[in-house]
Formats: sequence, structure tokens, C-alpha cells
Amino acid sequence: MAVMLKAKPLAEETGAEIAAKVNGWKAQGRNPAIATILVEGDPASLYYAQAKRRLADKLDVKFELHTFPPDVPEEQLLGTIISLNENADVHGIMLELPLPAGIRLDQLAEAIDPLKDVDGIASTNKLACLTGSPGIYPATPQSCIRLLRYYDFSLRGKHVVVIGRGETVGRPLIQMLLRENATVTICHSHTPDLGAHIRQADIVIAAAGKANLITPAMVHPKLVIVDAGINEKPDGSGIIGDVDPETAAVVHALSPVPGGVGTLTTVILFDNVMRAMELQEAAGRLN
Amino acid sequence: MAVMLKAKPLAEETGAEIAAKVNGWKAQGRNPAIATILVEGDPASLYYAQAKRRLADKLDVKFELHTFPPDVPEEQLLGTIISLNENADVHGIMLELPLPAGIRLDQLAEAIDPLKDVDGIASTNKLACLTGSPGIYPATPQSCIRLLRYYDFSLRGKHVVVIGRGETVGRPLIQMLLRENATVTICHSHTPDLGAHIRQADIVIAAAGKANLITPAMVHPKLVIVDAGINEKPDGSGIIGDVDPETAAVVHALSPVPGGVGTLTTVILFDNVMRAMELQEAAGRLN
Repeated sequence: MAVMLKAKPLAEETGAEIAAKVNGWKAQGRNPAIATILVEGDPASLYYAQAKRRLADKLDVKFELHTFPPDVPEEQLLGTIISLNENADVHGIMLELPLPAGIRLDQLAEAIDPLKDVDGIASTNKLACLTGSPGIYPATPQSCIRLLRYYDFSLRGKHVVVIGRGETVGRPLIQMLLRENATVTICHSHTPDLGAHIRQADIVIAAAGKANLITPAMVHPKLVIVDAGINEKPDGSGIIGDVDPETAAVVHALSPVPGGVGTLTTVILFDNVMRAMELQEAAGRLN
Repeated sequence: MAVMLKAKPLAEETGAEIAAKVNGWKAQGRNPAIATILVEGDPASLYYAQAKRRLADKLDVKFELHTFPPDVPEEQLLGTIISLNENADVHGIMLELPLPAGIRLDQLAEAIDPLKDVDGIASTNKLACLTGSPGIYPATPQSCIRLLRYYDFSLRGKHVVVIGRGETVGRPLIQMLLRENATVTICHSHTPDLGAHIRQADIVIAAAGKANLITPAMVHPKLVIVDAGINEKPDGSGIIGDVDPETAAVVHALSPVPGGVGTLTTVILFDNVMRAMELQEAAGRLN
């Protein structure tokens, strides 16, 4: 049976560090606050927003939820973002995904002040993540790397196979893993034989968003798998990852879903809020 | 003996297309012009500048060479870039590399007007290349992909191993290859067993800048290799690639050095000048 890379201990440790920082800001008369924009209609986006609210309460960060009906015009969302950019009492701005069809995420992402862009989706932050320059990096890839580090799996010189080339996880991971001196392979929906690549890997990071994509037949006993997949169970009873849970029996280590990457990601989002406040302070923009 | 992926026929074809575009611009009273900034002291940078001048003459593009002594202050180079940005009769700006130690390439790259940045080194263009949005992409990675396409080697679903993670070739290639639906592995100086990765590949693109890094013992008979390496021979008698020439005997296809990627890259740089002029025209900025 695999070592289960549970996120809880690291999430608690990171949460305690954030809570200490929140106290530090409050001692200066600054009340950390994030604003989340939620367009109703998808149960997943509501679920994520609620999880953030719970953690915000726990960390004593102010949480503003801006909710809109499914048919909200894009211009109205843009207007909300612009007013949140201008509000010096709001330090982080997030868009709950998925957005309804017809709303252009790119347009909204570009409107977010890069110093408040705690999801790292504005182009300035994407480029920072690409080049390793200062900025706010997306939370999920950070979560994957920090979870491996916490469990003492070094990346240097290792062959890491990333499954999925999405904007929020796979692509930023490539750059971050190269900076850790890993050899990186990116597989995706056009990769003809996924198992052949996984069998060559030291570490796999799954971010394809396909339930049970990775099966016991594709792995080897020394493999370490970080499962960043979040998929709804067909019966709606919860979430499952990209890795068939039976794979745990035949690999060295596996992060669980739920209780793995996603658990840590929510915490790191608040770490990004702390980072955003530091950047805003350095820019002389904090009240 | 391998099929040699000589660039000459494609370079001539592309050159003829560019010459036709140049004539089109001239018919509108616009004379395509590029400016190259050369800081003296490195024989390679002088060699590249001279190669560009020869091609500019052949394609009837105006070529301005701005030469500076090795101890030129960075501010003076910045001043030159700014005046070239403002000069509507100059359509492309290039920095010959390598620059002397102490000159910060990043600072200079950021100063170049993105619409004149024919080497694709300004952050706006780097990000465009990352995301696939409109912009000017660096010439060498374009050259690697176009050479493969010219010789009918499809990238879709292929496993491409890129050797080298540099800013100008390896990193942009990752994104461009993913957009071609290749599965991509990036190896570099921290990869413990390069041969193990090369033996798994359908296609290898070598951009490490290390002479004879890839040897006959690392390859297989079906392998296609594009050699983007340009290294000086120890005796100064010319250039060699990253691939030991004896490898040609035991692979399916190999691009020669000289006469491969580099030959095509210089032509694509002028294709980028045409692209720059189109972008400048669309922005209402052409005289």
C-alpha cells in the first residue's frame, strides 16, 4: 500500500503561518480581505466559494462574495473587477470557475490588477511564472510542488511526467518544475500511450481533469503520484481525482482526492493574498 | 546514412516569399528596414551580423548596423533602442548576442517596441509565444518546426525530446510543440541519463549549445534529429552542432550544422520583419 500524501498536516502548518501574518497586518491596522466573484449556475463553483469562505473565517480574513445570476453581462463583471481594483481595502480578487459559456475569462483576467490577482491568471503573473520573476503564481501548481517537498521527495534530476497542459496547472508546472531542475515530460489528450510515459517516470503529476485516467496497469512500484485532478463522481456524491484509487496498492506514494492537492490549494490561495499584500505594500498602495 | 534535413531549399522558398512581400511594401512606398545593434568584442556576434547584412542585401531590405565598443554604457544602448523605436522608417530592431558581461539583456529587451521586436525577446512577445496569441515569435524555434514540416515529419502525437531549456530556443519550443499536439520532454544539464530519454523519442530537437553532446550510442535507427546547436569548433575553423556528426550513420534523419536550422533562422528573422510591418500597419503606425 502506498504512502498517502495527505495534505492536512502541511495545510495546517501553512494555515498557522498565514494566521500569524494576518495578525501582523491587523496589528498595523490593515484587515486582509479578499473578494470572490461567483456566477451562479455550476455547483462546483459554489462549492469552491464556500470552502474559501470557511477557511477565510478560520484565518480571520475578510471574505466578500459577489454573486451574479447565470445571465450576467460580461460588462457587469468587468465593472465589478474595476471597482474592486480601486478599493484599497480589498487585497485579493478571485473569479470562481467555471464561468458560464459566453463570458470570456481572458477579458476578465486581464482586467484584474496584477497585484490583487491571487489566482495568478493575469498575463503579467503568467509571464512572471514563466520566467521566474517576482509575481503571484497560481495556487494549484504551487500546491503540487510543496506537497512533494513536505514529504521529502526531491525534484532535482528527477523525471517528472505532467499529465495535462491546461493554463492553470499543467503549463505553469512545466516552468516551475524546470526551475527545480527536474526533467519534465508533458502528456495530454493527444499522447498515444500514456502508460508508456508514466512507466518511465519517477514522479507523475496528474492534472488532466479525467476521472480514473491513471490505472494500476500504467504504473510501477517506485512511482510517486500527485493527483491534482478534481472530478465530480457520476452519482454526485463527492469528488474523485485523475488516478484510479486502486492504483494506491501498486505505487510507492499517492496523494489522495479529496484530502490532497485541493486541500492545500485553498490554503495557498490565502498565502497568495499575503503575498499580494506584501507586493501592494512595496508599491505604496496599502491604506 | 540519415536523410539530411538541409535547410537550403526551404530557405530559398521562404526567401522568395519574403522578397515578394518586400516588393509589395515598396510598391506602397514603404522600404522595409531593420536595425541591428552590435557591441564589438565577440567574433560570433560579428559573424551573425554579417550574415544578416548579406541576406538583407539579397532580399532588398535596408540594413542599419549600429556598432558600439565593448565598454559602451548600457544607457547608451538604451538610448539607441528608444530612438529606433521612434523612427517610423525602421521596422525591426535586433540585438546581436552575446552581449558583454555587465550589459543586462533583459533591460534592453524590455525597451524594444514589441511591434519591432523581430527576435521575440520582449516580454509581450514571450507571453504571446507562451499562450499562442498574436505577436512576434523567436526565429530559431520557428525554424526547427518549419524544417520538420518541410520534410513531412508530423508532430501531432509524436514524442519530441527537447534538449536545452534556454530562453531563446528550448522554452519557447515547449509551448509551440504542445500547440502542435506533440508530447514533449525537456532535458537539460541536470538530466542524469540523456541517452535514456533520447532512445524513447520519435524526434529530438537539440538546443543545448554543447558540441557533440549527442552521440551514436544515444540514438535509435528511426530517430529524427533537428540540431539547433551552434558551437565554435575548438580550432576556430567553423561551427558544429550539438550532435556528433557520426550520429548521421545511425539515425533516420538529421539536420546538418552548418546548413540546417541556422541557415533557415536567418531567413525567418526577415519573415519576422514582414510580420512586424503587418502588425505596425494594423496599429496605424507605418509611414
